[in-house]
Amino acid sequence: MSGPTYRDVARELGVSTATVSRALSGELGVSEELAERVRRTAEALGYRSNRAARALRKKRAEAVGLVISDVENPFFASVARTVEGAAAERRHAVLLCNTDEDLDQERLYLDLLIEENVAGVIVAPSAEQIGPLAQLREQGIPTVTLDRRVEDDPFDAVLVDHRAGARELVAHLLEHGHRSIAAVMGTTAATPSRERLAGCREAIDAVDGAELSVVEGEMRDAVGVQGTFELGERLAMEMLLGDDRPSAVFCANGLLSLGVLRAVRRLGLRVPDDIAVVGFDDQPFFDLLDPPLSVAAQPLDQLGRTAVELLFDRIAHPDRDVSTVILPPSVRLRRSCGCSDT
Amino acid sequence: MSGPTYRDVARELGVSTATVSRALSGELGVSEELAERVRRTAEALGYRSNRAARALRKKRAEAVGLVISDVENPFFASVARTVEGAAAERRHAVLLCNTDEDLDQERLYLDLLIEENVAGVIVAPSAEQIGPLAQLREQGIPTVTLDRRVEDDPFDAVLVDHRAGARELVAHLLEHGHRSIAAVMGTTAATPSRERLAGCREAIDAVDGAELSVVEGEMRDAVGVQGTFELGERLAMEMLLGDDRPSAVFCANGLLSLGVLRAVRRLGLRVPDDIAVVGFDDQPFFDLLDPPLSVAAQPLDQLGRTAVELLFDRIAHPDRDVSTVILPPSVRLRRSCGCSDT
Repeated sequence: MSGPTYRDVARELGVSTATVSRALSGELGVSEELAERVRRTAEALGYRSNRAARALRKKRAEAVGLVISDVENPFFASVARTVEGAAAERRHAVLLCNTDEDLDQERLYLDLLIEENVAGVIVAPSAEQIGPLAQLREQGIPTVTLDRRVEDDPFDAVLVDHRAGARELVAHLLEHGHRSIAAVMGTTAATPSRERLAGCREAIDAVDGAELSVVEGEMRDAVGVQGTFELGERLAMEMLLGDDRPSAVFCANGLLSLGVLRAVRRLGLRVPDDIAVVGFDDQPFFDLLDPPLSVAAQPLDQLGRTAVELLFDRIAHPDRDVSTVILPPSVRLRRSCGCSDT
Repeated sequence: MSGPTYRDVARELGVSTATVSRALSGELGVSEELAERVRRTAEALGYRSNRAARALRKKRAEAVGLVISDVENPFFASVARTVEGAAAERRHAVLLCNTDEDLDQERLYLDLLIEENVAGVIVAPSAEQIGPLAQLREQGIPTVTLDRRVEDDPFDAVLVDHRAGARELVAHLLEHGHRSIAAVMGTTAATPSRERLAGCREAIDAVDGAELSVVEGEMRDAVGVQGTFELGERLAMEMLLGDDRPSAVFCANGLLSLGVLRAVRRLGLRVPDDIAVVGFDDQPFFDLLDPPLSVAAQPLDQLGRTAVELLFDRIAHPDRDVSTVILPPSVRLRRSCGCSDT
């Protein structure tokens, strides 16, 4: 920076840099008279706004928005990293926003991204109704929903076949002879969880005498690593201390799996002898757990890359038909299901 | 939205919504003649820009920027979530940017955040030199560095006493009788790693006949969960297959710890009998590993909250002295060090 800065303008007038910034960007909180004085001083000092200065030097860095529901969840953290890598290849930055499954926060971040003129948005919506996403459609902003779809499919979407993954895991437990199986769900408010539960039911319904019990928490408890982990532990404790203890458990995500394993350990039960455990989601260390966990792994890299591809294809072809890509999870059998380690 | 949108303006003129957006925001890539036509059409249709419309409705949502080096690293993911919670309490959104320890990417994101007029920036800098952060200082943008400091301390900083945590862990291994200890470092290019290594050396130097060997990778390999994990595994394999196998290992972060544990398992060695393992960083499932891992845990919540407090204090008092807060880690002894489980 060779020219004068906000600070110089602020010093000249005896006001704060924040005031200068507000005045020059036309925001509220500064009287019109003061704003005018700031503009005149800035001009007199030869101050040129960043945006203008940079636009003269180079094309402005383009950004896309990525709105996820829980940055601390390893699923979203991995997807975020992949999205960023794929966007960087297209010379776009990623502004990452975390909603904690809160619709108000989702609305706030989408407002912000729209104001910032992002080239497009990839979003894991907190609700199935279009809700805060309506403004993306109204303003024609290229949008891809990730991991979850919105009612009536107004946007391109990249999804995982949650139902198939859960069905395969539970069918595997049934093959091991289990007939009383519990599903530990964080919450069934989000589509992926509901689809996973539907997959469990499909497997159970295909086998005579098989029963599924379901325990679940509430949305507000199923957010954040620590929260979800503790929820899984609490739900599993209640279930395992109950009268009809199941012989096997399906855990609806990786954090719940860890919570269930801790409850099992606290109760002095052995996996898989006393209770078999399988879970949705894999993590790089799940084979190091005691015992190694059998899982349905989501294709994280493919998910993030596909979302970015759909988004840039939409940017290039705003009027093409809406496209939905459904990716298969892969089941990895280790020891917690009752198999011998391979 | 009741008024006309970009889309209406675009339709009227037969151009893309991106062109309308560029023309109305004064960006490059649109001829002045077309930009003028867009502006006139927008005005004729009664279009009012979002920013203006929103500013009339309410004060614009304020945002702070959070620039971290690896969103997939559970350490940063946790910190990001805490920062967001603390910022939300102050009615600020958080724009999260991931640099992958890349100075060019760091510069790009800081440019972007400055253009977006964020109220302040919390950053885990990729280098010790002020580098891309110079513009934050020049423009008087409230800034806090997190986890790492910048040469000559130009900014408020919140740090962890890495040296003390590592010293305590290695001193504990020495108490268990180990004299040949290896430190597995991802890279010693970043300050936290170097401080951790210095802590190891202090403990070693205090005991006669104790020796420290150091294995480390390169920065480009020490990014991302999978990358760091594999680096730890590879470094540990080389070390454990070498001639002078140590009897205990210090792992410089949580992801490296997992990689080391996998190498140990691949070689059929037992922890802690054949080799003791301790590591920096805790995770909620580290007590579920086989065996439960002894660690120095970073105060993640406190780290994120303190960064936000320092930032808002700086926003309120732009001229106060620079402040550095150093937080202690807590050592949690489990079984991998040779202790009996508690």
